[in-house]
Amino acid sequence: MKAILVVGDGMADRPLRELNGKTPLEAAEKPSLDWVAENGVCGIMDPIAPGIPPGSDTAHLALLGYDALKVYTGRGALEAVGSGVEVLPGDVAFRCNFATVDENLKVVNRRAGRIETDDASRLARVFKEISLEKHPNVQVIFKNSIQHRAILLLRGPRLSTMVSDSDPQKVGSSVLRVRPLDNTPEARKTAEIVDELTQCFHKKLKEHRVNSERQKKGLLPANIVLCRGAGKLPDITPITLRYGIQAAAICVMPLVKGVCKVAGMRLLAVPGVTGTYDTDVIAKANSALRAVQTNDFVFLHVKATDVASHDHKVQQKVRMIEKIDTMIEHLIQNANLEETIIAVTADHTTSLVTGEHEGDPVPVAIAGPGVRTDDVKEFGERTCAKGGLGRTRGVDLMPTIMNLLGKTKKFGA
Amino acid sequence: MKAILVVGDGMADRPLRELNGKTPLEAAEKPSLDWVAENGVCGIMDPIAPGIPPGSDTAHLALLGYDALKVYTGRGALEAVGSGVEVLPGDVAFRCNFATVDENLKVVNRRAGRIETDDASRLARVFKEISLEKHPNVQVIFKNSIQHRAILLLRGPRLSTMVSDSDPQKVGSSVLRVRPLDNTPEARKTAEIVDELTQCFHKKLKEHRVNSERQKKGLLPANIVLCRGAGKLPDITPITLRYGIQAAAICVMPLVKGVCKVAGMRLLAVPGVTGTYDTDVIAKANSALRAVQTNDFVFLHVKATDVASHDHKVQQKVRMIEKIDTMIEHLIQNANLEETIIAVTADHTTSLVTGEHEGDPVPVAIAGPGVRTDDVKEFGERTCAKGGLGRTRGVDLMPTIMNLLGKTKKFGA
Repeated sequence: MKAILVVGDGMADRPLRELNGKTPLEAAEKPSLDWVAENGVCGIMDPIAPGIPPGSDTAHLALLGYDALKVYTGRGALEAVGSGVEVLPGDVAFRCNFATVDENLKVVNRRAGRIETDDASRLARVFKEISLEKHPNVQVIFKNSIQHRAILLLRGPRLSTMVSDSDPQKVGSSVLRVRPLDNTPEARKTAEIVDELTQCFHKKLKEHRVNSERQKKGLLPANIVLCRGAGKLPDITPITLRYGIQAAAICVMPLVKGVCKVAGMRLLAVPGVTGTYDTDVIAKANSALRAVQTNDFVFLHVKATDVASHDHKVQQKVRMIEKIDTMIEHLIQNANLEETIIAVTADHTTSLVTGEHEGDPVPVAIAGPGVRTDDVKEFGERTCAKGGLGRTRGVDLMPTIMNLLGKTKKFGA
Repeated sequence: MKAILVVGDGMADRPLRELNGKTPLEAAEKPSLDWVAENGVCGIMDPIAPGIPPGSDTAHLALLGYDALKVYTGRGALEAVGSGVEVLPGDVAFRCNFATVDENLKVVNRRAGRIETDDASRLARVFKEISLEKHPNVQVIFKNSIQHRAILLLRGPRLSTMVSDSDPQKVGSSVLRVRPLDNTPEARKTAEIVDELTQCFHKKLKEHRVNSERQKKGLLPANIVLCRGAGKLPDITPITLRYGIQAAAICVMPLVKGVCKVAGMRLLAVPGVTGTYDTDVIAKANSALRAVQTNDFVFLHVKATDVASHDHKVQQKVRMIEKIDTMIEHLIQNANLEETIIAVTADHTTSLVTGEHEGDPVPVAIAGPGVRTDDVKEFGERTCAKGGLGRTRGVDLMPTIMNLLGKTKKFGA
């Protein structure tokens, strides 16, 4: 038995006036999602706990079977791993932005006008040989990814994630002093290092040739690097070891990729997959169908439902759900349903009204051999609440699926 | 968005033969409670955990979002705070009764014949200047409230709540020796102090003029003070800080007032509100409607449903539920329902048959903007069990409501 878990990011929502009191899931044409509900067992699930809005990182840790309240150690390291940066135990990683500040270190633009990746890469080269004056035994690793985005990684003895951000996350505000968030020498040391680095980044960047060129062209200079979200690798057992399985993940968002990777899954690159509305869902489905030949568990993530909610775009969300439905149709038509569990859920509710992650439960449906089907015939937030799974928690999903695969270990004798 | 939480104390019950197999909630005419169910999302809720009968204190700690199993530290301090006695961290407080004992210290009447408040106040004056011989650094504070009721508070270094009661809670039994409940010097010291005080109270009271006057009038002398329910302030973060809200509570029962106050809520005094069957529920509703103008969260408590169950009065309980329904009708008719969440529940089940708090779950309904309504059309123990909230715990109610208000913090990024 194999399993494919489809996660529509932020797909769950609240009833909306624009949709005549329906949620986007309820309003969408989604025969294949409904097929999973009708042929499966349904329920609602609190990703973390009732009322608690999850981040993308904590929600995915939970969906992969980890108690996020215990194992979560910040976003930075997960984002770094997902961006292809090697993170070792003990390393402290930050998410960074190339940004534009004025002479008083006030933020003019948090993304340096969404600087082109090429320019950012040229700028990043000057950080290759940074050595910290006061902390010579701490290694500084800096890697830019797409556009303004980058990762800063500190490697060395006695570092801490308990430090604040230098990024004020607000135009017009000054770059923040990084402060220790607990009373340990580790936190004080780490804060001092990030402050020292912020000065150093600014000094090296403001006179860089790339920036003079940009300014001549009327572009904003990327004259500082802002850091946020200090994180370490969570101390978790990979699902491959935990359940004795082969597992693969199809996702593009660096943070989700990071979670999947630290959970021990192989990341599959799929051409045409973008993380936006135009993503190629059939390519995704085909990749999942291939992967399930050689893996026990395939995780298939679609991002754009969440993007639509954050952008308050009702119709785009409905259409993206219909696109996910097409993807699931392709899975159903081509998978060997005699030996494949197909599960569908969302990592959290993202409200089209507030544009934020909310703490409402998400629907879940699991179809496949051995499943105790129920009366639910439609996949939705309210229909699934009447399903045979009842109300569960995110952390229980993976054991539930692994149980159907015969991969959970007996507790007791 | 604002929220009003209505709690009918002990309102939930079990099916009764006298009501043709219905519960009091099912038997009552309650169109407005049903309106909340029909226009809201329903569920059942275990205040603490399945099968565990909660006290009024632990149930309300849970309803306000605290893990009572972790934070509960006895009834005494909560009762004291609710009675207007200042309790500082470390103080140990007891609920006390003026009582009547014979010459062998056997209890003749646990409430000194429900002594008048005036007489009790005059008696209480003699405790103003008690100093403990063996423990001169422990301060003794004694405050009587209504009739026989009083609070004893010990303030000083190294006191413990782990001591037994001197109150045998039974006529004909001897006043109990107070014993340490764990093997710490703190518990031994506190037990010794309460024993010393019991002797001292008896000595001062038995020869008091008030008591001779009472005996001349044929009244029982209040010749001892019985102590029970040692408690400290729970170490909790007020909900006002936890969620960044303004919050107010309307309740009369000292214990519930105490919980609301330590939870950081402003207590509103409402004329005509009595805690008994004749309480003015419209005055309560109006107070809540005013309070919700300037508060994010208003807690509205009605006591007498519980009283009816303790007294085995079936019809009185049904009528009291109908009175709560009138209160809710007034809320619905006058609140701005576009921006107000109305939630209704009970703090526990109190059985009309046993007259005791029981561990059955309670029904809950939450109506208002953004709520995922379900098919439930009646508010009751059995109808709500089919609702969209499923079966939750008391501790999850507050995050669920705060999530609808946009007041829960995201966990993760």
